[in-house]
Amino acid sequence: MFVYQIVDPHTVSVNGKLYTAKNILIGVGGRPSMLDIPGIEHAIDSDAALDLPSKPEKIAIVGGGYIALEFAGIFNGLKSEVHVFIRQKKVLRGFDEEVRDFLAEQMSLRGITFHTEQTPQAVIKSDDGLLSLKTSKETIDGFSHVMFATGRRPNTKNLGLEEVGVEMDKNGAIVVDEYSRTSVDSIWAVGDVTNRINLTPVALMEGGAFVKTVFGNEPTKPDYRAVPSAVFSQPPIGQVGLTEEQAIEEYGDVDVFVANFRPLKATLSGLPDRVLMKIIVCATTNKVVGVHMCGDDAPEIIQGIAIAVKAGLTKQDFDATIGIHPTSAEEFVTMRNATRKIRKSSADQVESKDEVATKQ
Amino acid sequence: MFVYQIVDPHTVSVNGKLYTAKNILIGVGGRPSMLDIPGIEHAIDSDAALDLPSKPEKIAIVGGGYIALEFAGIFNGLKSEVHVFIRQKKVLRGFDEEVRDFLAEQMSLRGITFHTEQTPQAVIKSDDGLLSLKTSKETIDGFSHVMFATGRRPNTKNLGLEEVGVEMDKNGAIVVDEYSRTSVDSIWAVGDVTNRINLTPVALMEGGAFVKTVFGNEPTKPDYRAVPSAVFSQPPIGQVGLTEEQAIEEYGDVDVFVANFRPLKATLSGLPDRVLMKIIVCATTNKVVGVHMCGDDAPEIIQGIAIAVKAGLTKQDFDATIGIHPTSAEEFVTMRNATRKIRKSSADQVESKDEVATKQ
Repeated sequence: MFVYQIVDPHTVSVNGKLYTAKNILIGVGGRPSMLDIPGIEHAIDSDAALDLPSKPEKIAIVGGGYIALEFAGIFNGLKSEVHVFIRQKKVLRGFDEEVRDFLAEQMSLRGITFHTEQTPQAVIKSDDGLLSLKTSKETIDGFSHVMFATGRRPNTKNLGLEEVGVEMDKNGAIVVDEYSRTSVDSIWAVGDVTNRINLTPVALMEGGAFVKTVFGNEPTKPDYRAVPSAVFSQPPIGQVGLTEEQAIEEYGDVDVFVANFRPLKATLSGLPDRVLMKIIVCATTNKVVGVHMCGDDAPEIIQGIAIAVKAGLTKQDFDATIGIHPTSAEEFVTMRNATRKIRKSSADQVESKDEVATKQ
Repeated sequence: MFVYQIVDPHTVSVNGKLYTAKNILIGVGGRPSMLDIPGIEHAIDSDAALDLPSKPEKIAIVGGGYIALEFAGIFNGLKSEVHVFIRQKKVLRGFDEEVRDFLAEQMSLRGITFHTEQTPQAVIKSDDGLLSLKTSKETIDGFSHVMFATGRRPNTKNLGLEEVGVEMDKNGAIVVDEYSRTSVDSIWAVGDVTNRINLTPVALMEGGAFVKTVFGNEPTKPDYRAVPSAVFSQPPIGQVGLTEEQAIEEYGDVDVFVANFRPLKATLSGLPDRVLMKIIVCATTNKVVGVHMCGDDAPEIIQGIAIAVKAGLTKQDFDATIGIHPTSAEEFVTMRNATRKIRKSSADQVESKDEVATKQ
């Protein structure tokens, strides 16, 4: 194990040995953060959840973010009884509202129970070894495991940052400028420790920009526009660009194309699975400003779509592309009629429910 | 069942009843075509292969096109013993050479036996009911089924086309101009019956262009550039744009990016599956002119990529896109070093084998 500390703007101590450098880059990441409530010592975090010796019989998962939902899907797949507790009304704050509703519905259909608008207050261990979760609304007993997926915190404790004068925000994240430079000129930081967009490929981009800036004599800012991302829930989500709500906020006049269908696989197997696909278009420029999908293969499908969105292609560019048949992805190039046309000017939203594309 | 015939440039007879119209559109498709060799009556075609009462114990599949390979994968998945006989050295004529080699290798690894450069000469039924296939090279016995997937032919027989004066080529395909008009002004044809690109979505595009041309007063040619397509073999192929060979022919100076890796799934399961991904770039304009993939989810992944290729986006546009981690598709936006730089001017091809991207 390494014990490291920054001792001055150009010196790092590693297990007591001093290393000096012109620049120091901090990329120590984050770690799960649990709520400070009575009995929390009986709960596990997402790291521990990956190391269980056997599958949980009945598990409470506290949290509505992507980590909570991914584990809910894993344990549900293993036939554990899964209860998810969230403080909000809906899962996945910040995601497209329609996608949030759709995913929760699909997960419920697969047997996961959601408990919404509940603040966890205590974990109680009974004599038989089982756990209860007490929330602001109810107490549910009989859990073999209680898992907290209530966020992650930057790993900035005991690094000597305060002493050297590196500024941090109230969550402990290192504050950096657009080039990833901290408040100390020779110290830089990238990745989750800066709490910008906490994704591996974004950290890679930040690292690449840092290299160009510091070693390539080519000051480069990471570009956070149209960063695609995925949630590996079941079904999974892939998305890039703005949500419908963000697009309306930013552009006012927005055309929304929605497809909601049973994938070919489900029509054969008789499973209740459905797929949701959305394209959000700026009505003025016709640029595709957001694409969202919840359904099998969504993360793989959205990657190519992200190239188009990042490059600022229009709905016409999507429409000009021939479909690959039979796939789910072909829906993205065959949605011809807007499901909703939202206009800020007239405030009258044209909604044509019957035009929701139905493949099946 | 309908019996229909074109009786004059504006009249169709359907079960003896006459219908007249200003324009007639022919879209009757194609059907499997078998070789005329002795014993062919013992063989089945791809239509019959979908209607088998039970799985074949041991099947000979004649043909190296996508239908032959898709059925080879289906029957191999059902644990039939599968032998594929092809006349060429390689499967999938017209596809990217590296993809052709890769798919044959992957299918062989999954237990399919290929017999190359063999012309089928006879199907022989023995007294025990089993079938033998005699080729120009060998005779293999013991087949429960012999299937011919040796191409499809336009359904143009007995339609009255010759009598009305609609021109056909030597394969029986209806000859049309760029607007899908036949040699008879009032008769049009779209889809496989014209033997252009025989894919459902292309027929849809041709139909759409026909509607605009004839009913919308907006003469529209179908656009055959960058039509993506898939082969649902195992593993499947997705592709769009030019093969490496076509790109070199057309542009001379071409950069080729190749990734060949074990997908995450296979590293966990220990399966031998690999994925091949290729990006072909015009070195002069930096436009991505072809993308090919053979591996799980390739058809779904290529659909979004096809939007980018159709719109003429550059390798820089691909590189500027952030990856979705962990997916296979992210490889398409993270290939930084060309595997081969082919230059017609100097004839010296820079090949750097060690730069073949290896994810795993």
